[in-house]
Amino acid sequence: MSRIALLLEYDGACFAGWQRQREGQPTVQGALEEALERVCDSAAGVVGAGRTDAGVHAWGQVASASVDTRLDPEALWRALNGVLPRAVAIRALAPMPDAFHALRDAVAKHYVYRWWPGPPRSPLRARDHHCLASAVDTGAMRAAAGHFVGRHDFASLQAAGSSATTSVRTLHRVELREMGDGSLRLDVEGDGFLRHMVRNLAGTLLEVGQGRRPPGTIPALLERRDRGAAGPTAPAAGLLLLAVRYDPPISWAVGRACDAGPLPA
Amino acid sequence: MSRIALLLEYDGACFAGWQRQREGQPTVQGALEEALERVCDSAAGVVGAGRTDAGVHAWGQVASASVDTRLDPEALWRALNGVLPRAVAIRALAPMPDAFHALRDAVAKHYVYRWWPGPPRSPLRARDHHCLASAVDTGAMRAAAGHFVGRHDFASLQAAGSSATTSVRTLHRVELREMGDGSLRLDVEGDGFLRHMVRNLAGTLLEVGQGRRPPGTIPALLERRDRGAAGPTAPAAGLLLLAVRYDPPISWAVGRACDAGPLPA
Repeated sequence: MSRIALLLEYDGACFAGWQRQREGQPTVQGALEEALERVCDSAAGVVGAGRTDAGVHAWGQVASASVDTRLDPEALWRALNGVLPRAVAIRALAPMPDAFHALRDAVAKHYVYRWWPGPPRSPLRARDHHCLASAVDTGAMRAAAGHFVGRHDFASLQAAGSSATTSVRTLHRVELREMGDGSLRLDVEGDGFLRHMVRNLAGTLLEVGQGRRPPGTIPALLERRDRGAAGPTAPAAGLLLLAVRYDPPISWAVGRACDAGPLPA
Repeated sequence: MSRIALLLEYDGACFAGWQRQREGQPTVQGALEEALERVCDSAAGVVGAGRTDAGVHAWGQVASASVDTRLDPEALWRALNGVLPRAVAIRALAPMPDAFHALRDAVAKHYVYRWWPGPPRSPLRARDHHCLASAVDTGAMRAAAGHFVGRHDFASLQAAGSSATTSVRTLHRVELREMGDGSLRLDVEGDGFLRHMVRNLAGTLLEVGQGRRPPGTIPALLERRDRGAAGPTAPAAGLLLLAVRYDPPISWAVGRACDAGPLPA
């Protein structure tokens, strides 16, 4: 068996999330496992860097797997893309050392959440933005965003019933920008994320933008370590896993890892 | 009854085209008529500037209608957006002279066709690009595009069985650009379009880009006035109706006609 890394793009609307479910639910992990089994003599241990929820999109998800195959990396990449469902593609592929593990070895992840402030809503953006009924106070949102940066116990932003051993994480960047087309883009980068953490952060920031939560209350919200203290979980469609960072960076052997993404920089 | 113009954005994937069908098929015209009937005392004569096919998106479709209502334009705009399906929105609305007719008065229409040259295909772009298996010769496509500009009989690009009285049209612009994200964008502007004309033009240009049709053969293709002389109809999902031009321009009374579109300029 040899170890590989895969750089994945997918349309989250077509999947019940990353993680393989019991029966009949299409998942990205399941689609990848099926493709590997069809193309390779054997395959095992498919792991993703981020267990994205149903509806969450990915431009730069990274997965690792062990495969037994006589195909070279280029042929393997083409063969896998040939059998995968249309809603997922392998942008690039790399042979890796046996110990490589896409989840454990990830040093940082970069998510993007996008809003379209109406009225009116934007049908062409609804697939990858959360469409809002009215404008929001972006200055207040930016002030609130700053409070999330740094090393904190993010228990208040963790989905109820999660089993993570610790809810302490470090966010390197929580930045809101007004884009040229009128949409709002939130970039969140950190060393790890709890279940629903980015969507709960986005839902809380939105309450700030709607004047329902003062920006200065964020530190107290984090100190409460209580999911009930934060805002609602923002819709999955607005979220995109943009990139996963490794140290040293993965040197992609085949494919087009350098392509610009489908969203404005 | 008073006359209004509507600026429409819609996700073509959710509709069986613009034009109202017999039964049970969701159409943009049908959705608009239902919304007008619910919100106004009476409504009639809903006409669109472009009869977009099933799957074709619109950022700047224009429709006209006659309505009987006590609502002012702002209230009418908000009420209509409140009852329309999520896949269509009225970006702006204007009271118009009684004689205004969205189709007859249009002086030019601007369509955009987009490709993503793989491999691999791009799942996040598949909704509004035609994903290709390999790179194409954009120089050849650009050379071919130039031959379509001007006043020509476009019978070779007209869907079989069309009933237009004349197939002579003028194209002001047929321009192919390589965008920063690696996608290809074709801008087509003209005074009128035959059924499937832009998609047949795009399908023909793609054959040029794939080396299956020399750019210099385009003039002869037009002279044949035979649908069989041109390439296949390109997939609907790659096409977007960007804008319709009127002279004088419509002065939108309410809404956000000036918003930048969801695609890079």
